[in-house]
Amino acid sequence: MDKLYVIKIGGNIIDDEQKLAAFLQSFASIHAPKILVHGGGKLATKLAAQLGIEQQLIDGRRITDAETLKIVTMVYAGFINKNIVAQLQANGCNAIGLCGADGNVIQAHKRQHPFIDYGFVGDVDVINTPLLQSLLAQHINVVLAPITHNKKGLLLNTNADTIAREVAQAMSILYEVHLLYSFEKKGVLLDTNDDNSVIQSINLSYYEELKKEQKIFAGMIPKLDNAFAALKKGVHRVVIGKAEQLEQLVAQTAGTSIINEM
Amino acid sequence: MDKLYVIKIGGNIIDDEQKLAAFLQSFASIHAPKILVHGGGKLATKLAAQLGIEQQLIDGRRITDAETLKIVTMVYAGFINKNIVAQLQANGCNAIGLCGADGNVIQAHKRQHPFIDYGFVGDVDVINTPLLQSLLAQHINVVLAPITHNKKGLLLNTNADTIAREVAQAMSILYEVHLLYSFEKKGVLLDTNDDNSVIQSINLSYYEELKKEQKIFAGMIPKLDNAFAALKKGVHRVVIGKAEQLEQLVAQTAGTSIINEM
Repeated sequence: MDKLYVIKIGGNIIDDEQKLAAFLQSFASIHAPKILVHGGGKLATKLAAQLGIEQQLIDGRRITDAETLKIVTMVYAGFINKNIVAQLQANGCNAIGLCGADGNVIQAHKRQHPFIDYGFVGDVDVINTPLLQSLLAQHINVVLAPITHNKKGLLLNTNADTIAREVAQAMSILYEVHLLYSFEKKGVLLDTNDDNSVIQSINLSYYEELKKEQKIFAGMIPKLDNAFAALKKGVHRVVIGKAEQLEQLVAQTAGTSIINEM
Repeated sequence: MDKLYVIKIGGNIIDDEQKLAAFLQSFASIHAPKILVHGGGKLATKLAAQLGIEQQLIDGRRITDAETLKIVTMVYAGFINKNIVAQLQANGCNAIGLCGADGNVIQAHKRQHPFIDYGFVGDVDVINTPLLQSLLAQHINVVLAPITHNKKGLLLNTNADTIAREVAQAMSILYEVHLLYSFEKKGVLLDTNDDNSVIQSINLSYYEELKKEQKIFAGMIPKLDNAFAALKKGVHRVVIGKAEQLEQLVAQTAGTSIINEM
């Protein structure tokens, strides 16, 4: 099976022009098929504020009303997505930027919740793996914006971490998928005050052990639970680390690898 | 040769939710490969005004400074493009929305002019016909936003009429291309005061005759010159007519056909 990299970058990189440029140069240099999933950054929030649209958050998730959906569609699927693609092209890396509606690549449904109205938020149903495979086979790398659709005409705001995981899982039928999550830290830390205490490799039994000893920072638990869930669904390896170290994350010389076996 | 429809819709349809929905339903019902090129509409101008960004026009063309480029990228390649794609998907028409940077589908260069600085405006160099052909062969129709790139990392604002013509010309090597321009009128009129005086069919000698008799409205001359130029470059037929009559324009029962022979 060929390797496929599914790489998620967060807002902290997107908001920093120089860091983003350096990241995209590293991304372009990976000699394998790859899918980049990007989050939003502060531009959407800033634009909403400038337009006098109030933002609501419940459990850390943006409540997406009609006006907010318009803004995130413009910013995520328009400005950020197209600028990333243009920069990749400048780095000699052929890429195509898609939202979930494009080629029906990510179909979702509007989230239903007994008490909370999340608004235009989508939970993923199906990934169009044949389309992704066809593009990758033509040496076209894919850049996914965190906007999906319900195939009934509605665009939906969808968490980028979730999109990365769903795409990685679905593509595991066709490729040996390496799922890379970039965030602010160098990896999962044994000591949250020491940025150099990165755990190189973690499997489920070691994770359980560390959790029992309360050595895992609470904020990491949902990320790691997600990573182990992805492995169960066929993803070969999940890596958590710093975007600035992308080349080392790919070479397995930095970050934390979450694996089935050790 | 298979038929390919390249269809341009203007801002007057994009700004009208109901008209756009009806147009997209008609577009979806065309049983042939098709490429939709959309213009901008008033949303970009409105958003710029809300954000306090002043717009400049020279010879009817928007001067695209850095802030305006940001806005048109968001509105054209984001909001408008993705909403059109989502609506086509809802109509059972598989479609993918691209700007020129995506898959390097339209490469352009920044316009150079001895006296006027147009800003981030692009003139088209190359259309990536193999990519368009590959998508169409997979029954994926293409929706193009009027944003191109220079392959050096710059996105560029580009006239949608020009994109439609350049794409139609380039694709004429592979398909029998029908280029449809939709605008406010039912077609080229013999009497500008009578919306029913549509000229059904016009070739170059008839056009010259009508121009000599001053029977062609001045505003139509650049459109018709463009249409005849497209025919010279291999486009099979150019049709000018009303977006609301799309099905009849395709069936050749409405609008003005611009053709090589009669």
